[in-house]
Amino acid sequence: MRLEKDLLGEREIPAGVYYGIYTLRARENFPLSGYKVSYTLIKAISLIKKAAAEVNSELGFLPQDKARAIATAAEEVMNGKLSDQFVVDALQGGAGTSTNMNVNEVLANRAIELLGGRLGDYDIVHPLNHVNKHQSTNDVYPTALRIAAIWLLKPLSESCAGLQAALQAKEAEFAGVIKVGRTEMQDAVPVMLGQEFSAYAGAIARDRWRLYKVEERLRQAALGGTAIGTGLNADRKYIFMVNDRVRQYAGIGLARAENMIDVIQNADVFVEVSGLLKALAVNLGKLAHDLRLLSSGPMAGLGEIRLPERQAGSSIMPGKVNPIIPEAVNQVAFHVMASDIAIAMAAQSGQLELNPFMPLIAHHLLENLSILTNAVTILNEFCVQGIMADSERCQLLLAGSQVSVTALVPHIGYDQASKVARRAMKAGISVRQAALELAVLSAEELDAVLDPRAMTRPGIAGSQK
Amino acid sequence: MRLEKDLLGEREIPAGVYYGIYTLRARENFPLSGYKVSYTLIKAISLIKKAAAEVNSELGFLPQDKARAIATAAEEVMNGKLSDQFVVDALQGGAGTSTNMNVNEVLANRAIELLGGRLGDYDIVHPLNHVNKHQSTNDVYPTALRIAAIWLLKPLSESCAGLQAALQAKEAEFAGVIKVGRTEMQDAVPVMLGQEFSAYAGAIARDRWRLYKVEERLRQAALGGTAIGTGLNADRKYIFMVNDRVRQYAGIGLARAENMIDVIQNADVFVEVSGLLKALAVNLGKLAHDLRLLSSGPMAGLGEIRLPERQAGSSIMPGKVNPIIPEAVNQVAFHVMASDIAIAMAAQSGQLELNPFMPLIAHHLLENLSILTNAVTILNEFCVQGIMADSERCQLLLAGSQVSVTALVPHIGYDQASKVARRAMKAGISVRQAALELAVLSAEELDAVLDPRAMTRPGIAGSQK
Amino acid sequence: MRLEKDLLGEREIPAGVYYGIYTLRARENFPLSGYKVSYTLIKAISLIKKAAAEVNSELGFLPQDKARAIATAAEEVMNGKLSDQFVVDALQGGAGTSTNMNVNEVLANRAIELLGGRLGDYDIVHPLNHVNKHQSTNDVYPTALRIAAIWLLKPLSESCAGLQAALQAKEAEFAGVIKVGRTEMQDAVPVMLGQEFSAYAGAIARDRWRLYKVEERLRQAALGGTAIGTGLNADRKYIFMVNDRVRQYAGIGLARAENMIDVIQNADVFVEVSGLLKALAVNLGKLAHDLRLLSSGPMAGLGEIRLPERQAGSSIMPGKVNPIIPEAVNQVAFHVMASDIAIAMAAQSGQLELNPFMPLIAHHLLENLSILTNAVTILNEFCVQGIMADSERCQLLLAGSQVSVTALVPHIGYDQASKVARRAMKAGISVRQAALELAVLSAEELDAVLDPRAMTRPGIAGSQK
Amino acid sequence: MRLEKDLLGEREIPAGVYYGIYTLRARENFPLSGYKVSYTLIKAISLIKKAAAEVNSELGFLPQDKARAIATAAEEVMNGKLSDQFVVDALQGGAGTSTNMNVNEVLANRAIELLGGRLGDYDIVHPLNHVNKHQSTNDVYPTALRIAAIWLLKPLSESCAGLQAALQAKEAEFAGVIKVGRTEMQDAVPVMLGQEFSAYAGAIARDRWRLYKVEERLRQAALGGTAIGTGLNADRKYIFMVNDRVRQYAGIGLARAENMIDVIQNADVFVEVSGLLKALAVNLGKLAHDLRLLSSGPMAGLGEIRLPERQAGSSIMPGKVNPIIPEAVNQVAFHVMASDIAIAMAAQSGQLELNPFMPLIAHHLLENLSILTNAVTILNEFCVQGIMADSERCQLLLAGSQVSVTALVPHIGYDQASKVARRAMKAGISVRQAALELAVLSAEELDAVLDPRAMTRPGIAGSQK
Repeated sequence: MRLEKDLLGEREIPAGVYYGIYTLRARENFPLSGYKVSYTLIKAISLIKKAAAEVNSELGFLPQDKARAIATAAEEVMNGKLSDQFVVDALQGGAGTSTNMNVNEVLANRAIELLGGRLGDYDIVHPLNHVNKHQSTNDVYPTALRIAAIWLLKPLSESCAGLQAALQAKEAEFAGVIKVGRTEMQDAVPVMLGQEFSAYAGAIARDRWRLYKVEERLRQAALGGTAIGTGLNADRKYIFMVNDRVRQYAGIGLARAENMIDVIQNADVFVEVSGLLKALAVNLGKLAHDLRLLSSGPMAGLGEIRLPERQAGSSIMPGKVNPIIPEAVNQVAFHVMASDIAIAMAAQSGQLELNPFMPLIAHHLLENLSILTNAVTILNEFCVQGIMADSERCQLLLAGSQVSVTALVPHIGYDQASKVARRAMKAGISVRQAALELAVLSAEELDAVLDPRAMTRPGIAGSQK
Repeated sequence: MRLEKDLLGEREIPAGVYYGIYTLRARENFPLSGYKVSYTLIKAISLIKKAAAEVNSELGFLPQDKARAIATAAEEVMNGKLSDQFVVDALQGGAGTSTNMNVNEVLANRAIELLGGRLGDYDIVHPLNHVNKHQSTNDVYPTALRIAAIWLLKPLSESCAGLQAALQAKEAEFAGVIKVGRTEMQDAVPVMLGQEFSAYAGAIARDRWRLYKVEERLRQAALGGTAIGTGLNADRKYIFMVNDRVRQYAGIGLARAENMIDVIQNADVFVEVSGLLKALAVNLGKLAHDLRLLSSGPMAGLGEIRLPERQAGSSIMPGKVNPIIPEAVNQVAFHVMASDIAIAMAAQSGQLELNPFMPLIAHHLLENLSILTNAVTILNEFCVQGIMADSERCQLLLAGSQVSVTALVPHIGYDQASKVARRAMKAGISVRQAALELAVLSAEELDAVLDPRAMTRPGIAGSQK
Repeated sequence: MRLEKDLLGEREIPAGVYYGIYTLRARENFPLSGYKVSYTLIKAISLIKKAAAEVNSELGFLPQDKARAIATAAEEVMNGKLSDQFVVDALQGGAGTSTNMNVNEVLANRAIELLGGRLGDYDIVHPLNHVNKHQSTNDVYPTALRIAAIWLLKPLSESCAGLQAALQAKEAEFAGVIKVGRTEMQDAVPVMLGQEFSAYAGAIARDRWRLYKVEERLRQAALGGTAIGTGLNADRKYIFMVNDRVRQYAGIGLARAENMIDVIQNADVFVEVSGLLKALAVNLGKLAHDLRLLSSGPMAGLGEIRLPERQAGSSIMPGKVNPIIPEAVNQVAFHVMASDIAIAMAAQSGQLELNPFMPLIAHHLLENLSILTNAVTILNEFCVQGIMADSERCQLLLAGSQVSVTALVPHIGYDQASKVARRAMKAGISVRQAALELAVLSAEELDAVLDPRAMTRPGIAGSQK
Repeated sequence: MRLEKDLLGEREIPAGVYYGIYTLRARENFPLSGYKVSYTLIKAISLIKKAAAEVNSELGFLPQDKARAIATAAEEVMNGKLSDQFVVDALQGGAGTSTNMNVNEVLANRAIELLGGRLGDYDIVHPLNHVNKHQSTNDVYPTALRIAAIWLLKPLSESCAGLQAALQAKEAEFAGVIKVGRTEMQDAVPVMLGQEFSAYAGAIARDRWRLYKVEERLRQAALGGTAIGTGLNADRKYIFMVNDRVRQYAGIGLARAENMIDVIQNADVFVEVSGLLKALAVNLGKLAHDLRLLSSGPMAGLGEIRLPERQAGSSIMPGKVNPIIPEAVNQVAFHVMASDIAIAMAAQSGQLELNPFMPLIAHHLLENLSILTNAVTILNEFCVQGIMADSERCQLLLAGSQVSVTALVPHIGYDQASKVARRAMKAGISVRQAALELAVLSAEELDAVLDPRAMTRPGIAGSQK
């Protein structure tokens, strides 16, 4: 146990603990959600601390040994060491100061230790005067959030690539499986099952493109802006060097923001990213719902495809297997869509020089990135890759339907075709037979016009044009 | 054309127009949505103006003739006269002042006219000194909104009663139609179609109860609270009398709020009402979706019920009829659910003594009440009442399914029953046959256990217990 | 390590683990959020398992020793033992089956152990045939969720009572602190600081009432409804007894639902509860925002109140103390408001006999209940209780404002009073002086009319009426 | 009055009306919101009809005279003629079929009239066989929506450019107005008022860029995809030509979609656009809120800027002027943010080959585009352009604050600077005097360090570095 002191008084810190009095108070102040701050964010902040320490040392603002110790400590945190020392709740007041200070204190104490001192001896390395030198939560936190978001975009993008590839493989596999199309849940014109999967693949391809493009918008670093973006207390050379160094270490194309006042106070870029994640959620939700529809039954539903069995479905109905993976994906989609509005509300409620609700934005945005990555992965690996078509059933349902009537329209007009459809429906006969009975076309003409495979391609079926 | 003047200067008002310079400016200031302010709200404000004029006259604050003229003008507006004079956009800044002033000006000018004066001669009847006497937008507007909401709750409640009755009629009509139940879109144990409609009726019954109970929360009138609820400038006798008078005229159980400061600044009651409308939207959305599922096909879908045909479904596919009424209801449900968050954001963003975003709250809340009333009505009259069951198809799908296997569980255990289910599924045979082949029960026992109608009632099928 | 088998094949289960193959697969299937299932929900499910085991034993469906062992195991889980055995992700497909099975397996294995058997020897106690007897996830899970929600409503309600009491204490403490009222962020008529706190207390009082009333709506138990509410496989006596027993053990007024089909498939009651939590969030958000406004400064803001200092505010600006507790509360409010839409989307998306998205509903609803409880508690204890008024500054700002001009209106009319206001504003003089210069009233009259304290009470200041 | 007939029977159509039986039924089926379908959408559909008629004629599918008459009718509608003939409610079931048919019928009848026929004589020009030839609602409607959205993006973008220019003008105008910065509503380091406006301008600049870039995503035309994107019944040459022709007429860079099945069923691009509108709403909301904060008072608030007076503020408080334009903008922001979730829910709920909820998406998206355009315009013209700084008050508040203490940190360390801040605060003295009393720096040093203007620029104030 050691004593630490701040402007509010003295507190005992448990022995062996790397965080200090600031973190202790913050932990006590926010017993809210029990959720931890994203470790990806902790890593990004640590990376900034390392870069700042080195640059400060190179510019003569920080003794080399201190800087080296801080940098080493930061690297350790980036490698997952000391991860139990980040103890402030993810939901926290104060624009991220508590998280920034948690990192400052842990790095200071670890650096002290590396330099042979006792934990808490901040004369050796001070959380603010050394670790936080030339920094403010307000320039560090949003910059770190951008880095963390970019880091998490990559695996999400890769998981989407995997899903797209799986959907395209199914597109090829099911290219010849002809079936009823459905619009508004009613039988429509024929389609290939492979074509349906091509539409899914197309949607996910757009998502990939969006994720790829939006990364650019995140690439603005505001280090050196300090408290409100004006750069007070940040040496000019430091500003140039630290943003460069962070870009280099983060391995992503960051650029120093031209207007740091803007970048520090405005959170619209996170709203933009979140909006695109929501678009992905929408596509995943639609896809998951379709898979549940197409695999419904197995006997008293559509039953056109079969999903891989992942676990027994029911605690009371033996043999039942449920579409649990798409169901989980649907829930993730709802989760992300709702989360998006939390981000927007928080972003809009920023006031003047700062947005105090950055911790909520960070929590939701980074959580969404990682949950979506996981959801896309299980949808791909546990479901899409193993989907099988029941082409016989597809054929059967198509044959029993009257969707081919549409192909008559170019030949006999909409009103006549309607009569054929009505007659077929009422008499329970096929479109071909109804058309014959109404003598709208000859049997030969009907054979040419009513070829379902031709109906899945552009053009007027049965026409030479 | 006449001239009017306010603190910002002079403006020309078109001849024959009943609103004045304030309304003119407000109209110019907010060319936003093109939506009109809810006329139900205009009526409720006018009712308050009438009550205030009378009470002020009785207390000697307003000459009798002026009061009478104002009251007459207010009655005319309540009867829909002069409705083209309310010209300020529904989306407007200023906490409703523009709408309150629009009413004040229209009533003043109409009262002037009734008293034989020229429009704009506010010495005869003044929008503020006479019509608005002892009032502020801040006490009038939220009180009027509560009245308007209560007024609109009644038809919504009635339309729900109608829908519930229709669902219950279908419950009775379909009481004997046995069919496959479905959980997670997979075949589950048997159910009567009537039972399904009983569940829909049960949900709507809860909605009715909610709408009935929430009316109480709206019954707080804040008249006399004036600017911020402290009652400055409102004679004490006036405060008592005006709230009584308004209750009497509105025909609803209003009560004078104990803490008018609270009632004027806090909009949580509208959030509460909106939350219940959202619950109704959720039930409607679920019901509409189920109706679309159950009527899907007609050939290549579930096809267990048929919805009434309301219009041709497709501009290209002859004979196609779509579930357009449930689709419209689903859209209304999404609309109301989204609107709910607008109300919540606006309510939360009130600051100190007033919520400046009341016009948005009023617009969304009253719109939702009326759109929901319309949606419930068309769902009832254009859809539910005309639903027909295809009991043959229900029977057919049930017979083709293996859902009866669940009834074996109490007799042979879950694991054995699973084996029966698997065998039936793989061999494409019935549960009964699979059970016989696996010799889990005798043929007589199976007959007793596998009676589908028994499975739709509580108890262990085939058991004497 | 032991082997377990299900319809998908065989799997190795780590030695000493109480869950089984079902849980193992579920854990692998849903590597999504990393969030644990609410332990309150686990407890409620275990309570149901205990009641069911006892009732089944009393009715002769389960040997006494097995029932006793299951009941004992359930009690242990309710006491927090084995809490590390509940390992399925909070976001999961399958309508809660994975969580129900997790409990079934843990209780079975612990019961086996209590009976002297080896883990995995399900002949002794079987997760489905014994622990889950007469049950289905579909009746157990929603009933358990209702119980868990009621359990969590109580502490929330208590924390609101605490906050209300603290606000009322401040109402009394600040009863004599006169200050400027503000509407639309502009100086309005005077108000007592105590009156402002009375409005906050009023809002929270309504929240308490809502939380109290909504509990009723949750009190419907559906045990015995089994898979879809029809009660298949549930002995009739069991149905009556188990719901009674659960009510008794849960200590809350549950009642057996009349229409279990409805209760199992419709989730609108959770939407209703969530809507009321959102109303609370709205009130908290408004209050927190007001506290941040009133305490802004300390020098260059309103500065009318001071919040307790909880931690240093800035890593770069010494001496700065930020309103971190209200900021955290604002974030919680956004979080809950957004979460509400997730619940509504999930509830609306239920299909036919079941809502497969119950795990998402449960996660959000129970999380919101507990985060709100925590937020209300810190707002009360770490902030409201320690608020101090700066009555001198309140007085100073009031004196420097021109808000008293409103009191002139009943005496000289709105237009004249406007002129006084304009003159005071332009010349930078007091309202009194401007009124004197414009000779609208005598000095004596002005003294009577312009008494700010009189302006905070109903009535016409300076009037005998 | 004339009679028309469809598959549901015969109906009377009022004389002189251009729409027909389909529209009549649709109007009766959806008495929901009272909102009209966006006329921009009607124009875009008409443009497609014109192009299709011409191309069909050129390819020999349609007689020249009919095609010319249809094209002329379409031009008339695009010019606003017959606008009262589009009578179907904006909220409608059926994926837009009712709107497409309304256009088909109006164009057919107007074309009939142009050709000298009687309204309703569809042998001359038929709504389906001629006007809708080679089309389906399902390819026409989403393509038209994309065109309409692009058309409305342009004025929105221009209004944003205007707002950005106005903000930049204020940036220049207020470049020398020094003031207190504020983070978390607490006094922070100094900033120029011009710098604050530069941050607002920066945010709006990003919005412009987003609006510019997103247009690309909308440029996919699906004409010829017909019912589900497979192109059934659409002549191949027609497909190529009609998309080209529409691009040419619409004046925007449309391209024929490669995968029309995808484009017809997936609505994610509208979610993407809506997400960016939400980002704009977030920026506008933040800006509007800041303007309300900065102009609060005028005496008992911050009062650093003055907004133009647009109308009297209060019906009870003379002389009060409220920030009504920003308030209106805040409401628009809430409206758009909420609307975004409606679009996302509708987009996600599409099933299989079509999204039946396109009318809701269209209504919300096009409404948002136009309301935002209006809001940005009034914010610019009625507010931002007329903002004036109160530089004296800015100076006064800055002088009375202790924000300059931050500049001491690089010279004396955070802990020492904290002590100075505390002493200054407690004693009510300036930072300079407190620093002198604590002898942390000499008077000369303090003069160099505590220059507020230097604090608004990057670097360490008072340092040679």
